[in-house]
Amino acid sequence: MSALKVIKIGGKVIDDNQKMDTFLEAFVSIREPKVLVHGGGSIASGMSERLGIKPNVVAGRRITDTETLEVITMVYGGLVNKKIVAKLQSLGVNAVGLSGADLNIISATKRDPEPVDFGWVGDVDQVNPEWVTTFLNKGITPVLAPLTHNGSGNMLNTNADTIASSVASALSSDFETELMLCFEQTGVMNGEKLITEMNQLLYRHLRDTGVVTDGMIPKIEVGFQALKNGVRKVNIRNFEDVAKPDSGTVFISN
Amino acid sequence: MSALKVIKIGGKVIDDNQKMDTFLEAFVSIREPKVLVHGGGSIASGMSERLGIKPNVVAGRRITDTETLEVITMVYGGLVNKKIVAKLQSLGVNAVGLSGADLNIISATKRDPEPVDFGWVGDVDQVNPEWVTTFLNKGITPVLAPLTHNGSGNMLNTNADTIASSVASALSSDFETELMLCFEQTGVMNGEKLITEMNQLLYRHLRDTGVVTDGMIPKIEVGFQALKNGVRKVNIRNFEDVAKPDSGTVFISN
Repeated sequence: MSALKVIKIGGKVIDDNQKMDTFLEAFVSIREPKVLVHGGGSIASGMSERLGIKPNVVAGRRITDTETLEVITMVYGGLVNKKIVAKLQSLGVNAVGLSGADLNIISATKRDPEPVDFGWVGDVDQVNPEWVTTFLNKGITPVLAPLTHNGSGNMLNTNADTIASSVASALSSDFETELMLCFEQTGVMNGEKLITEMNQLLYRHLRDTGVVTDGMIPKIEVGFQALKNGVRKVNIRNFEDVAKPDSGTVFISN
Repeated sequence: MSALKVIKIGGKVIDDNQKMDTFLEAFVSIREPKVLVHGGGSIASGMSERLGIKPNVVAGRRITDTETLEVITMVYGGLVNKKIVAKLQSLGVNAVGLSGADLNIISATKRDPEPVDFGWVGDVDQVNPEWVTTFLNKGITPVLAPLTHNGSGNMLNTNADTIASSVASALSSDFETELMLCFEQTGVMNGEKLITEMNQLLYRHLRDTGVVTDGMIPKIEVGFQALKNGVRKVNIRNFEDVAKPDSGTVFISN
């Protein structure tokens, strides 16, 4: 099987054109077939604010109401996705920007409104990787927005780490897949110190002692899920190190 | 050669969810391979207004400044495009939403700033129809947003009729292509009366006598251009009549 890298770029990098350029220039230096999954950074919430859409927050998490879904569809599926595709084209990489609705690549179900109704948030049902494989075999780089659809005409907001992990898992029967979750930090940190290797036992310890908190918890769990689902290598690393062989926090399955 | 319909939907239909549903339900009843090209209606200008972006108008035409280009990329490439794709999926049609940057389908050059600088507006250089043909041959319906790219990392705003005409022309070596420009009117009108057939002589007469004015002029010229470039049939018709065999104003090349 040939190698494939599924690379997620997120966090504050998305908000900063110069950092995105740095990332994409490193990204295109990777020779292997690759899939890029992007988040939306804070552009969507900034856009909502400019549009006068009041944030609807329950239990510290933002609800994807109908207006917010429209903003997310615009910002993730349009602005961020097409800017990346145009930039990749200028760097000599033929890319195609896709949401989960396009070619029915990722279908999802709207999350149960109990106990908390998060609105138009989708949990991935199925990844249909055939077209992604076709693109990769023809030298095309798919660029996936964190949007899925429910098959009944609605787009859904889906976490970009989850998209990356699900797609990497689905492609693991055809490729030796590596999942890289890239952001502005060096990896999983304990204060100033990088944790270079992570297994389940260490993760639970770090979580239970409050070293790993908030958004890092689902990110790490998504990483372990990918390993469990056949992805060969998983790591969390800095966006500038995307083309380096070993970097950041490497996941170990045991 | 097999038949292909390149169908453009634009005008006020885009702004009206119910009309779009009516259109898309008729659209999916067409059995032949088909490409859908959409405009942006007034959603982009409404969004600009909500965002406090002042319209920059020269000689009666809106300038695509950098902020406006971002809005257009969001609204056309994200909101309108993905809504259509999700709806088509729900109607059992596997669709893929694309801008001209995706798969480098349409490259363009920023229009010369002299005599009037229209900003980030692109004139089509080249249509690369290979992937569109691949999709069509696999039963996929491409849905094209009116956005191109310049190959240097910038998206460009390109008229949707021009996109439809250029794509129909480029596909005419592989398909017997029909171009349909659909909108909320019945066709080209002389007052209350539908003009059922249009040739160059009649067009020039109608234009010179002020019957055909404003936005209808470039639309008709784009139609004649398509006929000249190998498109077999061209017509301008009402969006509700998209699946009917003969309807609206039919173009005749002489």
